[in-house]
Amino acid sequence: MNITGQSIIAGTTQTGTEGSTLAVNPATGEQLEPSYGFISDTQLAAATQAAEAAFDTYRSTSPEERAAFLEKIADNIEAIGDELIERAVAESGLPAARIQGERGRTIGQLRLFASVVRLGDHQEVRIDPAQPDREPAPRLDIRQRQVPLGPVAVFGASNFPLAFSTAGGDTASALAAGCPVIVKAHNAHPGTAELVGHAIADAVASSALPSGVFSLLYGRGASIGQALVRDPRIKAVGFTGSRSGGQALMRTATARPEPIPVYAEMSSINPVFLLPGSLADDAKGIAAQFVGSLTMGSGQFCTNPGLLFVPEGGDGDRFVESAVKEISQRTGQTMLTPGIADACAASAAHLASLPGVERVAEGSTGEGENAPAPALFSTTAERFRSEPGMQNEVFGAAGLIVRCAPDELLQLAESVEGQLTATIHSTETDNNVVRELLPVLERKVGRILFNGWPTGVEVNHAMVHGGPFPATSDSRTTSVGSLAIYRFQRPVSYQNAPAEVLPAPLKDNNDWKLNRRIDGTTEQTQGSLR
Amino acid sequence: MNITGQSIIAGTTQTGTEGSTLAVNPATGEQLEPSYGFISDTQLAAATQAAEAAFDTYRSTSPEERAAFLEKIADNIEAIGDELIERAVAESGLPAARIQGERGRTIGQLRLFASVVRLGDHQEVRIDPAQPDREPAPRLDIRQRQVPLGPVAVFGASNFPLAFSTAGGDTASALAAGCPVIVKAHNAHPGTAELVGHAIADAVASSALPSGVFSLLYGRGASIGQALVRDPRIKAVGFTGSRSGGQALMRTATARPEPIPVYAEMSSINPVFLLPGSLADDAKGIAAQFVGSLTMGSGQFCTNPGLLFVPEGGDGDRFVESAVKEISQRTGQTMLTPGIADACAASAAHLASLPGVERVAEGSTGEGENAPAPALFSTTAERFRSEPGMQNEVFGAAGLIVRCAPDELLQLAESVEGQLTATIHSTETDNNVVRELLPVLERKVGRILFNGWPTGVEVNHAMVHGGPFPATSDSRTTSVGSLAIYRFQRPVSYQNAPAEVLPAPLKDNNDWKLNRRIDGTTEQTQGSLR
Repeated sequence: MNITGQSIIAGTTQTGTEGSTLAVNPATGEQLEPSYGFISDTQLAAATQAAEAAFDTYRSTSPEERAAFLEKIADNIEAIGDELIERAVAESGLPAARIQGERGRTIGQLRLFASVVRLGDHQEVRIDPAQPDREPAPRLDIRQRQVPLGPVAVFGASNFPLAFSTAGGDTASALAAGCPVIVKAHNAHPGTAELVGHAIADAVASSALPSGVFSLLYGRGASIGQALVRDPRIKAVGFTGSRSGGQALMRTATARPEPIPVYAEMSSINPVFLLPGSLADDAKGIAAQFVGSLTMGSGQFCTNPGLLFVPEGGDGDRFVESAVKEISQRTGQTMLTPGIADACAASAAHLASLPGVERVAEGSTGEGENAPAPALFSTTAERFRSEPGMQNEVFGAAGLIVRCAPDELLQLAESVEGQLTATIHSTETDNNVVRELLPVLERKVGRILFNGWPTGVEVNHAMVHGGPFPATSDSRTTSVGSLAIYRFQRPVSYQNAPAEVLPAPLKDNNDWKLNRRIDGTTEQTQGSLR
Repeated sequence: MNITGQSIIAGTTQTGTEGSTLAVNPATGEQLEPSYGFISDTQLAAATQAAEAAFDTYRSTSPEERAAFLEKIADNIEAIGDELIERAVAESGLPAARIQGERGRTIGQLRLFASVVRLGDHQEVRIDPAQPDREPAPRLDIRQRQVPLGPVAVFGASNFPLAFSTAGGDTASALAAGCPVIVKAHNAHPGTAELVGHAIADAVASSALPSGVFSLLYGRGASIGQALVRDPRIKAVGFTGSRSGGQALMRTATARPEPIPVYAEMSSINPVFLLPGSLADDAKGIAAQFVGSLTMGSGQFCTNPGLLFVPEGGDGDRFVESAVKEISQRTGQTMLTPGIADACAASAAHLASLPGVERVAEGSTGEGENAPAPALFSTTAERFRSEPGMQNEVFGAAGLIVRCAPDELLQLAESVEGQLTATIHSTETDNNVVRELLPVLERKVGRILFNGWPTGVEVNHAMVHGGPFPATSDSRTTSVGSLAIYRFQRPVSYQNAPAEVLPAPLKDNNDWKLNRRIDGTTEQTQGSLR
């Protein structure tokens, strides 16, 4: 496929006229052709107008039509072949195997949402049939279903050029819900975005959908983001990135004449609680696993385990010694962009500068550019509680160990900000402590995991990749897994509607064979209603 | 029961020290004893601290315990007897029959949520069992459930002293979800609030729940509201009232260090589309029904039909003539407060002052105080589209008729702001127009009803009392009906958790007999998981 450097605006390719950018290979510093032109306000408005115009047609597609469309996108991405892997590797500095895995996940997400759309439970149909003889007043027929919110603006992540970007989780869940999507391409991987963008646009065309269902725009980070979120035709926002970036979009969205929901997945340091039983069992093994998780992908994961609570005393000491030794042997890997590598160094330096923080281990700098050394820091429970700055995310392979007494654990857990995950390492002997910790952690995080590591997020029905602020802007949702479709819907009820005009999911004959809730309890998949 | 004028702070009665207020009988202007003292910041903090302290215990109640508690509240409210009716009538100017009906609805809501809690579907349990043999990596056991958000601040409505106030829909749904509730009493009906507040507090005590599960606070409107929503222990807000009041709470909630969701049900003028077939059938009958709905309860309903689109020409003329005649024969009824009556007069005068608006009918002023005359206004489609001020809510018995050509209907529907409801009067001959209107209205409102009137909101499983901004602050939810419980929850997943520490709804043995989603599709109510 020919990479052209153009935006895709409702099925047409357009050259941006307001400046341009080139991708950079972070491993070599080399600039990658072509240059990507930044779009004008007029071009942006053309995309949002087309999305609005496409909305009613797109949202009225049948489950089968919409599911087939999602699967077509997956097929098209697969069909790009090695060109996609090569470009993504060049733009991200990530190894080919990782990008291949991410492609599998991206395609798998699209197919998962296709299956969700076919099943149709997300339409949440509720029917309370009429009771004409009810006293004192007859009950009228009321039927409810979820409808999509409208055009969605998606801001992809730097750290997942495929799975959280152009055709990533936000795009897949919004399209599945029936919302047109406008993606603002991440300037760190514009070519990857373009390849995937054409895979989507081609699926739109071959599915005979209105072209406004999808656009891919290149622009200067903050300004195009603000313009998109201010646009009155945009009805929701999906974002993965920094806390400052997410909060800027939240402010813009709430200041609109019509405020809209923003689903921003922002920052998390993913606390890990090492309980005595687990350390007594295998302090050294856990240390090795920890360092593996911390340094994987140069630590560039929202679920990177950046904060460990480790008991004072012998087993804890052994864990720290092993972790220090492991880290010292590690070499830095190329980070995604020079900017991210610089920010990692700066935030690690800031952490090191805080009173009571000691740098206990450092690996070596990698051979390529932008490959800072992994590092490990340590502090005390008292210092941690008195210095909120220690909870600032270091996006990279850097972790902070907090040494604490057993009776400090609960208070430390309470002092932690909202997070995507919390991890507990425990054995049966720790269960009493676990039972005390769980209620606290449930108030703090979206996912609680045991005897594993938070990196590696399964895409399934039970996954929550979300959590209280500042991990996300909206703890009521997840950005990974099939529950994510619910972010882009709202309920509408129909009272006493003539059968002939009822939307398909609400008709008595239930052509789409949906599970429907009748009078709050009964479920049925087929046949007549009464 | 003795009305004392005191706040209820976590089971204790406390006299506010920061000024006070007396209720006023709007029909007579008479002040009603006792005076209600406004609480101090310290008293407010005591309530939120107690709510936070009660949260983990309250949310861990079993479905049966929580359902029985909700039913106990209902029983206690019923047991107050006539004193409640008399006080609410005196404080609101509403007829006794209306208050009796509202009491039935309030009790019914609590019992509905008890049944929802017992069924347990709102816990939305999802289990994706482990697949140890999956390639390339084993799949880990992940289980998800919804947990309550935390303490909720509830701001009751002036116009439903029972059903949308102290133990109203917001309180019932938040308690059902497992959230402690702090109600800011509406100063228009403080005695009604106190009576109901004790019914709740007594149920808390007799159910052996922590006293912080419920508090009822008296304070100066805006200041206590801002203080409550700023309090870091409050995790969500339910509000029914004015657009300016709701937006002020939204601003405060988003400016917090940790932003929280606000569910504000604000303003709606509930457009009605009279299609030619329905008018040809019975223009006069529809006019009589319309005026009945418009003037019921002095027009003090969020669902009051304040905007009608009526075809130009003969049948439309006949409808208007009949409506004018009906209105002219109506007498004003006492409004809820002098302030509301004044605001109604002012907003009706503003509507009348807009260019192109004609006052076509006026009833007579009521005999008691604060009983303004019902009124009907008319304008053209062109004027309506060019003057957004015509969409400002007149909270009272005043309606605006927009005369329009058949081909203007869609554009007019598009020009309407977000609303709670839209109503269509149609016969089979109108179905083609209805099919065009529906997609537009689905984007604009929460409930679409046919051949009826929007006043009168059924409390059931399929009801949506919500809609796009400015009707509410969050179109993804409803404040009436069982779906409202979802507002106060968020998902948490548990990965690879030891069986012994799993929360009850996620355990293999499913003691609570919940419907659970296994691998995204299967539902089961009982028995072992594998």
